Amino acid sequence: MANNLRIAVIGTGRMGTDHIKRLTHRIAGADVTGVVDIDAGRARSAAVLAGDQAKIWDDPHAALASGEYDAFVLTTPGMLHYDVLMDALGRRLPVFCEKPLTADGPTAREIVDAEAEIGRRLIQVGFMRRFDAGYRRLRAFFEDGSLGAPLMLHCRHRNPDPPPNFTDALMIYDSVVHEMDGVRYFTGEEITEISVRRGRTTTGGDGKLSDPQQVLMRTESDVLVDVEIFVNALFGYQVHTEAVFERGIVDIGNDEGAYIRSAGRWGGEVTPGFEQRFAAAFDAEFQGWVNRLRAGAAPDGPSAWDGYAAAVCCEAGVAAQQTGAATAVYLGDKPALYRA
Amino acid sequence: MANNLRIAVIGTGRMGTDHIKRLTHRIAGADVTGVVDIDAGRARSAAVLAGDQAKIWDDPHAALASGEYDAFVLTTPGMLHYDVLMDALGRRLPVFCEKPLTADGPTAREIVDAEAEIGRRLIQVGFMRRFDAGYRRLRAFFEDGSLGAPLMLHCRHRNPDPPPNFTDALMIYDSVVHEMDGVRYFTGEEITEISVRRGRTTTGGDGKLSDPQQVLMRTESDVLVDVEIFVNALFGYQVHTEAVFERGIVDIGNDEGAYIRSAGRWGGEVTPGFEQRFAAAFDAEFQGWVNRLRAGAAPDGPSAWDGYAAAVCCEAGVAAQQTGAATAVYLGDKPALYRA
Amino acid sequence: MANNLRIAVIGTGRMGTDHIKRLTHRIAGADVTGVVDIDAGRARSAAVLAGDQAKIWDDPHAALASGEYDAFVLTTPGMLHYDVLMDALGRRLPVFCEKPLTADGPTAREIVDAEAEIGRRLIQVGFMRRFDAGYRRLRAFFEDGSLGAPLMLHCRHRNPDPPPNFTDALMIYDSVVHEMDGVRYFTGEEITEISVRRGRTTTGGDGKLSDPQQVLMRTESDVLVDVEIFVNALFGYQVHTEAVFERGIVDIGNDEGAYIRSAGRWGGEVTPGFEQRFAAAFDAEFQGWVNRLRAGAAPDGPSAWDGYAAAVCCEAGVAAQQTGAATAVYLGDKPALYRA
Amino acid sequence: MANNLRIAVIGTGRMGTDHIKRLTHRIAGADVTGVVDIDAGRARSAAVLAGDQAKIWDDPHAALASGEYDAFVLTTPGMLHYDVLMDALGRRLPVFCEKPLTADGPTAREIVDAEAEIGRRLIQVGFMRRFDAGYRRLRAFFEDGSLGAPLMLHCRHRNPDPPPNFTDALMIYDSVVHEMDGVRYFTGEEITEISVRRGRTTTGGDGKLSDPQQVLMRTESDVLVDVEIFVNALFGYQVHTEAVFERGIVDIGNDEGAYIRSAGRWGGEVTPGFEQRFAAAFDAEFQGWVNRLRAGAAPDGPSAWDGYAAAVCCEAGVAAQQTGAATAVYLGDKPALYRA
Repeated sequence: MANNLRIAVIGTGRMGTDHIKRLTHRIAGADVTGVVDIDAGRARSAAVLAGDQAKIWDDPHAALASGEYDAFVLTTPGMLHYDVLMDALGRRLPVFCEKPLTADGPTAREIVDAEAEIGRRLIQVGFMRRFDAGYRRLRAFFEDGSLGAPLMLHCRHRNPDPPPNFTDALMIYDSVVHEMDGVRYFTGEEITEISVRRGRTTTGGDGKLSDPQQVLMRTESDVLVDVEIFVNALFGYQVHTEAVFERGIVDIGNDEGAYIRSAGRWGGEVTPGFEQRFAAAFDAEFQGWVNRLRAGAAPDGPSAWDGYAAAVCCEAGVAAQQTGAATAVYLGDKPALYRA
Repeated sequence: MANNLRIAVIGTGRMGTDHIKRLTHRIAGADVTGVVDIDAGRARSAAVLAGDQAKIWDDPHAALASGEYDAFVLTTPGMLHYDVLMDALGRRLPVFCEKPLTADGPTAREIVDAEAEIGRRLIQVGFMRRFDAGYRRLRAFFEDGSLGAPLMLHCRHRNPDPPPNFTDALMIYDSVVHEMDGVRYFTGEEITEISVRRGRTTTGGDGKLSDPQQVLMRTESDVLVDVEIFVNALFGYQVHTEAVFERGIVDIGNDEGAYIRSAGRWGGEVTPGFEQRFAAAFDAEFQGWVNRLRAGAAPDGPSAWDGYAAAVCCEAGVAAQQTGAATAVYLGDKPALYRA
Repeated sequence: MANNLRIAVIGTGRMGTDHIKRLTHRIAGADVTGVVDIDAGRARSAAVLAGDQAKIWDDPHAALASGEYDAFVLTTPGMLHYDVLMDALGRRLPVFCEKPLTADGPTAREIVDAEAEIGRRLIQVGFMRRFDAGYRRLRAFFEDGSLGAPLMLHCRHRNPDPPPNFTDALMIYDSVVHEMDGVRYFTGEEITEISVRRGRTTTGGDGKLSDPQQVLMRTESDVLVDVEIFVNALFGYQVHTEAVFERGIVDIGNDEGAYIRSAGRWGGEVTPGFEQRFAAAFDAEFQGWVNRLRAGAAPDGPSAWDGYAAAVCCEAGVAAQQTGAATAVYLGDKPALYRA
Repeated sequence: MANNLRIAVIGTGRMGTDHIKRLTHRIAGADVTGVVDIDAGRARSAAVLAGDQAKIWDDPHAALASGEYDAFVLTTPGMLHYDVLMDALGRRLPVFCEKPLTADGPTAREIVDAEAEIGRRLIQVGFMRRFDAGYRRLRAFFEDGSLGAPLMLHCRHRNPDPPPNFTDALMIYDSVVHEMDGVRYFTGEEITEISVRRGRTTTGGDGKLSDPQQVLMRTESDVLVDVEIFVNALFGYQVHTEAVFERGIVDIGNDEGAYIRSAGRWGGEVTPGFEQRFAAAFDAEFQGWVNRLRAGAAPDGPSAWDGYAAAVCCEAGVAAQQTGAATAVYLGDKPALYRA
């Protein structure tokens, strides 16, 4: 195998440090040799996590310009992504970009257009669920047609505990965005329409959210989608998807693990959070990305187009929340680079 | 125990003969001593099923007037129910009435008002799911509050094969009506609003139905309900309900029975139809009704009010199918007789 | 249907009163018109349960001789069975006999021989599990050969709480006897050899039992059977059977019912005891027996031979417990009456 | 992090090449820089798999002596292990040794004694199941005592297809050995006694094996163990373990993955083989071993003592197969190095 990939991680918050640990301890063929953060203390801590071999930077553009890195992992807040991605595209440097691609649809579209202009994929967006074994198995049923055409998708996204200052809009941008990407991944179609239903609100939260909500979507071929988004689901984390095909039904995300009968109950332990639920998916996502780059190939995970589509869907979702009306989703032309 | 109840079954089609067999072979304390059908041959066959001790009538009113019966089971088509029920109410005779209560909301309301005027329950409506062990267990969570307030209900109603000449409207009247009653049973609330979403239609049917559809409802306390109604679900029958509470989730109607690993698959056999799925519920429904009447008590199963509410909900559901808009449900005042 | 069967219940302890309630409230076509108990108070209470229409007897032989009953249900302790059964056989009266058939193998053999001499089945023995839907489904795999020949049976029999003064021998006679009958029912073969392994004993019991134990059996065609018998299984009741065939595996008795996610656990509620687990089987057992007798047919449930075989197997099981050695089971010739 | 570990893989058959691919593509911190095989062609192919950076050797002792490697992975047939391990121990070089440790109990004991003499663990044995998430969760119940003391273990080990020329003895050495190690891992106790039951043989095999068999074991504290070993289980692979504790039951290895309802069946797809079932365990096993060595620590996975105990248990198991009698297991003194 070629030498290990030299990677700089830009942003050393929670996601950034998680990825540094992953790349250092669980991913073959990559070394974190650079960390970038304007907070010098945080950057130093991150460098230690990388085995003390990482150079510290406070300016991502300097790191990009240095020539010392084969690839970048971008985990700063979304509003900082645009400049870094544009700089990286200009230098033809590959970037693994955590969602969101950028702060909004129009800037995301600019990234898409810039990459399409280059004519080669450099960006991969961090929709890790696409690397989950269940997601892959379910998608195969959409692709092989063995159960006939898809008709409906029922999605559950339950979180035990939202971050502080969570808002209705963030329920779309942070949580439902994964379901939106899942719908696009499974069906291979774009989402065309979104509406949101609000009902009784749990007393289990802080009272500022309308929680749970139901997000209704429709795809190009009229597959109907309903999403329950519930971010104060006190029993534990759950992501569950049920696909209805003409000749069968497929569920993924069912409860698994050790099965216990005790104290009058049978069953098992609920997965506490997304870190546990998607641990293997995160690893597979990064290993696949590293393997592609080491082999000299372009990344084949979620693309800038996927990030852009998610941004537009989220904006439509928030509009639907606010207006109560079904909201259309318009993406415009899809550049050839992103057609299969 | 008192002597066996003498029962006349009015209508000897599929449901009627099923109930004759049930009452004769599986229910304690009741004898089918009369059968009523305008089709003499069918009536004779039905009398044989009842052990050759049943008198044959062609006019339900004559049977009602005869004084030979303690109770009646009404299984004729719905448009014939009104006259029989009114006659029975006038004579203070108990009737087990298969759904629908009558042909439409206004006549159903007349039945309600007539029974309320009498001030004593005489009618029980055949919503058999309320006697299913799973339904009872789920309702208990709504009643005991152990998981907090209910927030959402996700319902699946999948049939392998619709009757000939099935229509979109019958999807509501014959199938979704059970979900409507279930929502009312679980929550103890009325349904306030209904809308219907149509999407991609299966190629597995005859092409005349929009199948599957999604029916969205809301209850008095704003519990959100979504129902998938799919009547050409080729894999088998399935009725599944998932209730979302503040502190937990409860599912009923999961696949059960022998668990098999063979030919590369694990799992079991899908229940073929509602007769198998709800066999025990039908028996419990009738045994409970017979036991109440033998003990001299009024029936305590689904009431005329429940039948009336179902009629109004169905009419709203069909209107929602036709208009595509959310449709309000108005029931008017609930007589004291039906308040717990 | 013919008139209701007139039944006298002999013995009004727990099983007797359960059966009186069942016959009175849940079984079509039968009336409990007699109760027999030497304890007059208990008999009176039982008569009330039967709806106050049952005549009270203190001597079973007087009831048998009275000519007032079409059939008998025998639920006295086992050592009292022999005389009643012999009397009933002499009078050609049908008896539903709760297990054990008689107090021991030799007297059970006498019953078998007496009935065989008559040449007509009059006795049905109360192995209710044969009427459980799971048991029936599993047996069908043995009969239809769709998964090839059976190779092994793994049985679990877990009780939450043994009766007071339970003994190692009673673990065989009261609990494992059901597994022995199950093995015979599923395979259609006799058991040929039994041994027992004792290991670590739970501290959850009273310390007098060796609990759990493992009972190993072998059938005529060398199907290997292992039974875990655990009578202080504090989490709840469980009867589970796993059959290994050449081309597949079938499990029955898996946990079922409402599925709950709360407080960090997923799953459901363990069935508390055999009354709940086998409620439907008890009903089906009695309804089937009543229907056969009303139709003038001989009973087709577990036979005197099945009761005899169980007695011999239990005796071998207890011997195996005591000696620690594999113990052969000899039944002698099977009369033609009991061959398929 | 320190530099990547330089690893030589000795033996490039199926297991060897699997581990080369794993170390190259999925394990962080290790490079396969040497491959050893007497078959030059096979060695060259293996070197290619390692990314063309691996030096090729035909003599393991030369590789050991070269000073070019930080650690070794030994996957040759078991009879070749003794010499390599002794050489490596002499040089204080760490070896990951696929099972068996050596060809038999006495030579395995020599390895144990040699390593104990050194006083530092250098050898890790490839019992990968200890790194399976289910195995880890089950062991935790043994360790934390939350369900009380363990009483019984029921194990199923079903393979769809044995290798050619498989024998009854290999059923023990290749398959049951994993269950033996599992019993020791879960309970933290040694196995004290083994017996084997043979029964009806499947017609699904080649007729040379007695298949399935039941292996009965006992541990130091009298936990009873039964193992079904079935190597022609045509439906697919399955490893299932059920532990009976005083206050509860825990099952691991239940069927998981996408849940499908189609063609009248519900359920999912059986895992085809151990490669799929234990893929994550293999990765965790190697990543853990690499991380320990890179950190300068001794390996903490299965030890030479575990390999030795497995060898003695297998020999007792084969003796039990041949004699039909319960066979005691004697391990002799356990050196301090291997006591927790």
